[in-house]
Amino acid sequence: VIISVINPNTSRAMTAAIEQTAREVAGPGTSIVAVTCPFGPASIESHHDHALAVPGVLAAISSGISSAAHPVSATVIACFGDPGLDAAREITEGPVLGIAEAGMHAASLVARTFSIVTTLSRTIGHTRELVHRYGFARACAGVYACGIPVLELDSLEAAALIGETCRETLDRDGSDAIVLGCAGMTNLASSLSADLGIPVIDGVAAAVKLAEALASLGLRTSKRSEYAPPPPKEVTGPAWRPNVHYGHME
Amino acid sequence: VIISVINPNTSRAMTAAIEQTAREVAGPGTSIVAVTCPFGPASIESHHDHALAVPGVLAAISSGISSAAHPVSATVIACFGDPGLDAAREITEGPVLGIAEAGMHAASLVARTFSIVTTLSRTIGHTRELVHRYGFARACAGVYACGIPVLELDSLEAAALIGETCRETLDRDGSDAIVLGCAGMTNLASSLSADLGIPVIDGVAAAVKLAEALASLGLRTSKRSEYAPPPPKEVTGPAWRPNVHYGHME
Amino acid sequence: VIISVINPNTSRAMTAAIEQTAREVAGPGTSIVAVTCPFGPASIESHHDHALAVPGVLAAISSGISSAAHPVSATVIACFGDPGLDAAREITEGPVLGIAEAGMHAASLVARTFSIVTTLSRTIGHTRELVHRYGFARACAGVYACGIPVLELDSLEAAALIGETCRETLDRDGSDAIVLGCAGMTNLASSLSADLGIPVIDGVAAAVKLAEALASLGLRTSKRSEYAPPPPKEVTGPAWRPNVHYGHME
Amino acid sequence: VIISVINPNTSRAMTAAIEQTAREVAGPGTSIVAVTCPFGPASIESHHDHALAVPGVLAAISSGISSAAHPVSATVIACFGDPGLDAAREITEGPVLGIAEAGMHAASLVARTFSIVTTLSRTIGHTRELVHRYGFARACAGVYACGIPVLELDSLEAAALIGETCRETLDRDGSDAIVLGCAGMTNLASSLSADLGIPVIDGVAAAVKLAEALASLGLRTSKRSEYAPPPPKEVTGPAWRPNVHYGHME
Amino acid sequence: VIISVINPNTSRAMTAAIEQTAREVAGPGTSIVAVTCPFGPASIESHHDHALAVPGVLAAISSGISSAAHPVSATVIACFGDPGLDAAREITEGPVLGIAEAGMHAASLVARTFSIVTTLSRTIGHTRELVHRYGFARACAGVYACGIPVLELDSLEAAALIGETCRETLDRDGSDAIVLGCAGMTNLASSLSADLGIPVIDGVAAAVKLAEALASLGLRTSKRSEYAPPPPKEVTGPAWRPNVHYGHME
Amino acid sequence: VIISVINPNTSRAMTAAIEQTAREVAGPGTSIVAVTCPFGPASIESHHDHALAVPGVLAAISSGISSAAHPVSATVIACFGDPGLDAAREITEGPVLGIAEAGMHAASLVARTFSIVTTLSRTIGHTRELVHRYGFARACAGVYACGIPVLELDSLEAAALIGETCRETLDRDGSDAIVLGCAGMTNLASSLSADLGIPVIDGVAAAVKLAEALASLGLRTSKRSEYAPPPPKEVTGPAWRPNVHYGHME
Repeated sequence: VIISVINPNTSRAMTAAIEQTAREVAGPGTSIVAVTCPFGPASIESHHDHALAVPGVLAAISSGISSAAHPVSATVIACFGDPGLDAAREITEGPVLGIAEAGMHAASLVARTFSIVTTLSRTIGHTRELVHRYGFARACAGVYACGIPVLELDSLEAAALIGETCRETLDRDGSDAIVLGCAGMTNLASSLSADLGIPVIDGVAAAVKLAEALASLGLRTSKRSEYAPPPPKEVTGPAWRPNVHYGHME
Repeated sequence: VIISVINPNTSRAMTAAIEQTAREVAGPGTSIVAVTCPFGPASIESHHDHALAVPGVLAAISSGISSAAHPVSATVIACFGDPGLDAAREITEGPVLGIAEAGMHAASLVARTFSIVTTLSRTIGHTRELVHRYGFARACAGVYACGIPVLELDSLEAAALIGETCRETLDRDGSDAIVLGCAGMTNLASSLSADLGIPVIDGVAAAVKLAEALASLGLRTSKRSEYAPPPPKEVTGPAWRPNVHYGHME
Repeated sequence: VIISVINPNTSRAMTAAIEQTAREVAGPGTSIVAVTCPFGPASIESHHDHALAVPGVLAAISSGISSAAHPVSATVIACFGDPGLDAAREITEGPVLGIAEAGMHAASLVARTFSIVTTLSRTIGHTRELVHRYGFARACAGVYACGIPVLELDSLEAAALIGETCRETLDRDGSDAIVLGCAGMTNLASSLSADLGIPVIDGVAAAVKLAEALASLGLRTSKRSEYAPPPPKEVTGPAWRPNVHYGHME
Repeated sequence: VIISVINPNTSRAMTAAIEQTAREVAGPGTSIVAVTCPFGPASIESHHDHALAVPGVLAAISSGISSAAHPVSATVIACFGDPGLDAAREITEGPVLGIAEAGMHAASLVARTFSIVTTLSRTIGHTRELVHRYGFARACAGVYACGIPVLELDSLEAAALIGETCRETLDRDGSDAIVLGCAGMTNLASSLSADLGIPVIDGVAAAVKLAEALASLGLRTSKRSEYAPPPPKEVTGPAWRPNVHYGHME
Repeated sequence: VIISVINPNTSRAMTAAIEQTAREVAGPGTSIVAVTCPFGPASIESHHDHALAVPGVLAAISSGISSAAHPVSATVIACFGDPGLDAAREITEGPVLGIAEAGMHAASLVARTFSIVTTLSRTIGHTRELVHRYGFARACAGVYACGIPVLELDSLEAAALIGETCRETLDRDGSDAIVLGCAGMTNLASSLSADLGIPVIDGVAAAVKLAEALASLGLRTSKRSEYAPPPPKEVTGPAWRPNVHYGHME
Repeated sequence: VIISVINPNTSRAMTAAIEQTAREVAGPGTSIVAVTCPFGPASIESHHDHALAVPGVLAAISSGISSAAHPVSATVIACFGDPGLDAAREITEGPVLGIAEAGMHAASLVARTFSIVTTLSRTIGHTRELVHRYGFARACAGVYACGIPVLELDSLEAAALIGETCRETLDRDGSDAIVLGCAGMTNLASSLSADLGIPVIDGVAAAVKLAEALASLGLRTSKRSEYAPPPPKEVTGPAWRPNVHYGHME
């Protein structure tokens, strides 16, 4: 099983952290290929960042498909906004998981209710959209922001503040688990879990294991209708590659 | 009132049709600025097309903001998938409307239930997402595809088939109105409405009028939290402009 | 475009305030005909008031239809309970909008979430019903009362208290916009909007502009089923006109 | 226990049928007071009829309160649109039940899913509103019309057609029970139930028994907030009584 | 009418309290047969207790069916988790009511919103499941625990604490009524109702009266599909009776 | 990783089939311990069967906990009704998955919408409950029965009929994947998947892999509130072990 883990922003430090988590949780027969997006925003903290990150995510997936010696079994999109998830399902064969999606699925299997602790409050609206889309409106007790930008998560002060936010969240919501709302928090899950005495779920780890599970079951994205390969289409300009025809993944 | 109407694909013929509708419905004090996306896919029929269209939509909006002699009052995104809607709300001050959003709002004001007739069946899933997001799960009785690709809508045969699909849809759903699910159907609304004896709503026309209404009320997108200007961010590569800093809309 | 704006209560001072708002926002080609209900309660603060106001609303609409030199293009029911909305849609041809409906639609187009600030707490239940009916259960973050009766809204103290309630509401709900929950607050929207730095939406203004928009699009209430003209029926007694046959709007 | 059963239309034949059902199901200690509305529409088949019926319903309730030798314990509003239910709860002390409400509650206690068979298709929209309001969106499998006007229900042909509609409905929906969607069908429940071999629920009978149950439990409408007595209010004109003050039920 | 009231735990003191309530509210023609479960847990405070109580509930119902001189008309399951409700509907003919179900139905008929006050916080999750299943997600404003175990409810201190929890709940939720979340609170409803000035609903009383109502209407659980008698099945071991065939209630 | 796979019925042939699937999909470091329930019904086709199976499921889990040389890492309950899931979460430490739950989670990760094909139509109601509880009301397009009893699934005729039902279901619902609604269909998933060209998901396989994934992530059921070990309780009679105290998993 080869799992491609895409970091949708261009921060190599974040890719390294994501890769470390992915390797730690990967099973014995699983190879992790971590990829930093070739272009796009340095971090994803707005709808605008999200929108500009998606072409890079798709380019990373496409170039992975065409260049790989061995075919990718499954893909993980390692940003809590799950950018490009639907499009990625169209252009790949194996399963594709977003880390918000994976984190919520995992949480709902070990707790009746969970809360999400994310970075900036401006991302709450989009997170709630994902909660509804994935069907966790009843399971998700609330979404809260710690107020720390994505690229400043990696400090002791940030860790302390996130821990504090988790604690307040559990008290406020009476929920049973926490889902961490950013790939940049991937290294905090186990210490928070130990401190708080409840499952604290990192979407990166969850997505890698769910991807592995689906891939080893032989499950692939259904190509019956919505996620069939996209119709060939002329795409111009900087968004992809200049002035080339884009076809069916050949 | 100046309304910028963005055609998210690169088809100039479709921009012309959209512009014609917009001008026809615009009030006496309203100027329409129709814009074809500077780059991106020729039509939007998949999540992949949608994803690649969004940077062009944002570029079109941005260049409109910076180049306009007079500031844009409101923006319409004239593709039924409403690509880039949230991001556009962040980078503009005036209201932004998607045509799916506008068409559904208008329909719900003149009918208890409506059905949507769209192009290819692969777009049904995304359309249903929008139905839920905008709050029309009870009002929308169903989403159906006529099976015609976006760039082949402009023929008598296509018009006849769309009419037929509308008729079947009304019988099946018992709904009171039809929302046309593609900007490429913009010229069919009035004849279908006359033929079927019910409101047939074109999102382009609806969006222009709602944009005009909001703009003349002085209503602008709330900048309190989610839609505040995006934080300045380094964005690299082809997705936007190569290696430039993107700041707050200056 | 001729828009009939019905004040469902019998307070002429409130009609004057509503009319002033309507005229201020009306477009150049729009005539406003403001109507005080010919009979009914002095203000609407209970289900009982609501119920007794509806026949007056329908009488006002009916007499407007029969007496108008020029046909009414659209109708606005200017009470936040939207009394008589469905019945009005049956007996008219043009679109009919309630101000609660219009205010919520407008708010959802410029904000992810909005809160409603209304008069007495006893109206909260009905307001929530409308929120659900119109599809804004996710968009509406909460409904709060300022505790001021309808006919006492027009004072500096009332304005201050409403402003205070709005401020607390924004803090509590984290929402992006406020919808004012009474036609009697129509003159407060712009100052509150300036003070609070977010969109504060007056349903009267919103309804007039949406009515104008729908009317100039040629959209009229679907007569396919539910809103077809009501079957002719003998109606006796004081509720309407004594002992007359009521037929199809002839 | 004294139960006031209000027929919201002015048809005395329908009052007689309703009264017969009510007396048949009433317990030994229960008195039934059947009341025909003193004014209003001859039958209720539109939102317009519904709106004009409500003041008569409230007048009937009010005059019952003031004239009764013994206080009314509970009130049943015997029209499937439940006209005036909220207002009636404000002006009375004892419980008030609508027959749509009661029929759906009863059905949900003896079946997982039920379907509703009503009169004219134009009433389906309002019925679905009630289904949502009362919380039966999951329990109610569908709402269907037999196409017979209210005042023509009382014939063998009508009974046969209603039976046929029930049969088709059960096949289509796979539901376990039928709720009859009009007080005018009150005499059909037992024969249909026998013929179809499933519970067929008449809202009149259900409401009388639920009213009896609540009354004998000493449960009365909560007066804490929404259903507190309406504030005294000047109500003018034909809708109620001309130019009188309406106060708190004294 | 004979109503079998099953106490799903093995505490005879609780059966006595339940029986007293049932007899107090029962109508003149109604006989109450109160039954303590023949085996199972002493009280039900966890999913585990709930699971182990269900076979005893079914055994009690079955032995009641086979031994009764007169057939049971309806069955009440007097534990707020409604254990065994669906299975009981399969093995009986008459209606079966759970006290959570009955309490919520009754509350929704006398109040717009209600809150539930239960015993231990660990039961909140299951209670919310029931709220959703029965359709009261909008009507139920919240579920709160007083923190008292089931078998310690019967003291003055417990009563005081429950009263305090109810008071806080009403303030927090702004709801109009309280449903008591345990059969062990059955004797508190009337005093709490008097103290708080709102309807405080005891599910035992509500279930007995609703059962009586349904039974005297001749309504029985639909046997069309889901609740048809269970297929005959070999059931081994301690859960029921050892090594006997269980057939269709003959 | 040691995964205990419980067959909730007493059919050893079904345990063998379940065990075979579990072993086939288990990863290299995973041991499967398949357990037939020590007592209970031969198959689970009604709420009554379900209720009587649960104590056996809990007994099997308990005896597994106490007798295992090595602690169980995770538990799978291999019946599509997910009997005893909540109680099992209380009495174990590791994650517990039901196969309905697991099948739906897996399906929602590889398809926008799925349909469920189950055995007898009487199980549809319970299946829909699970769909709602787990949050898949939007993802699940429908639940259909093939009409074959659980213990007759293992024949060529049954396989053909199930295939036929799947095909009809895909046409009717337009869904993208099928979830098989019974553990007894576990051996059909891969051939059906090949025949139909879409993902056909067997809950047994899905649950084993999800259990493995959660266990190797170190995720365990949250013990914060609802799923904390059940309070010690006297449990009498045949349902468990006669007259013993049941305490905290000692």
